Amino acid sequence: MTAATPAPRRRGRRPAGEDTRGAIVAAAREQFAARGYEAVTLRAIARAAGVDPRLVHHYFDGKEEVFVEAVGFPVRPKTVVEGVLGSGPDGVGERLARAFFAAWDGPSQRERVVALLSAVLASPEAAAMLREFVTREILLRVAGELGGDRPELRAAMCGAQMIGVAMVRYVVRIEPVASADVEELVRLLAPTLQRYLTADLTGELAGGPAGGDRA
Amino acid sequence: MTAATPAPRRRGRRPAGEDTRGAIVAAAREQFAARGYEAVTLRAIARAAGVDPRLVHHYFDGKEEVFVEAVGFPVRPKTVVEGVLGSGPDGVGERLARAFFAAWDGPSQRERVVALLSAVLASPEAAAMLREFVTREILLRVAGELGGDRPELRAAMCGAQMIGVAMVRYVVRIEPVASADVEELVRLLAPTLQRYLTADLTGELAGGPAGGDRA
Repeated sequence: MTAATPAPRRRGRRPAGEDTRGAIVAAAREQFAARGYEAVTLRAIARAAGVDPRLVHHYFDGKEEVFVEAVGFPVRPKTVVEGVLGSGPDGVGERLARAFFAAWDGPSQRERVVALLSAVLASPEAAAMLREFVTREILLRVAGELGGDRPELRAAMCGAQMIGVAMVRYVVRIEPVASADVEELVRLLAPTLQRYLTADLTGELAGGPAGGDRA
Repeated sequence: MTAATPAPRRRGRRPAGEDTRGAIVAAAREQFAARGYEAVTLRAIARAAGVDPRLVHHYFDGKEEVFVEAVGFPVRPKTVVEGVLGSGPDGVGERLARAFFAAWDGPSQRERVVALLSAVLASPEAAAMLREFVTREILLRVAGELGGDRPELRAAMCGAQMIGVAMVRYVVRIEPVASADVEELVRLLAPTLQRYLTADLTGELAGGPAGGDRA
């Protein structure tokens, strides 16, 4: 268990290159499925793959990159977060809605997305894993960078809205959402996501017809 | 197959009362699971139960009542629709959010709700059945009564938002939504549902930063 020396290659010698990379991805897939996204470390993946942790760093730019490849997630979180944040809070809801459909709705992605959602529907562990990943690496980063209070609540509400749309559009296929134009859905979702990300929640929660008292 | 005569009791004689009622419910459960909510008729349920269709009408006030009992749905749709519609469009989003949590969040309902959602997560057919029921008997009735254009789209968007919240709060349990106060969630959801139900979608879709052209 010394930190910098290569872990013992219990599974036999392995030639360098694609085979090692493939072994890392396969080990990561098992680790994430068994333990979720947050609990798994690059070191644990290296140990499970029987490779030196430095090799994981050599092939992948961080845990989120291993995850993207291991589960076939359709986009790189860094790219999405940068694009969604853009130049600031104005229009961030629309950019998030657009990024969501760009990731899930393209002709080449749909197959991967249905496979991902099927795994999620078949297993609460898979659902938790994917949600941890999306929340931590995309939504929480976006909400955090915008600087509002309660970024976790904002991220979770955006996640809830988008999970629901994904279920209705891709899994259960309820019309007219299932075959609606992406532009139309973007315009429906954009103000909702914009509000969850940037509205003054304190003010909103204190005022309005809902009042301040419990029923 | 003559309409008004009792169907043959192929499964043997059955005493009147709870046993017949139970047979109807059991047959309905099988029918809905196999064929979804919309495709099943009261006549088909009667046939599957081996009872006269008039007995189904005797015990249940319509297909939605049979469904409520067959799947353990936590509320009667008619009661919900009347309460949500209230005196008109003002505050309908808040009343829908409140009805949603009243149905799902009570101490006695949670067990049933988790059972329902587990069935949905385990089977796309169960998901479709439940979604058909909620959309047709609750959301579409609310959206239709409000008189706006495109009630199906409005109902589906409300459904998408609430399914997502149910997933995040009850199934995957992402904080802070999982343990948030119901009143707080009502105030977050109310403006979203209000907009989906009553906003001028034509105007919204034509204007705004999203523009009118496809990218």
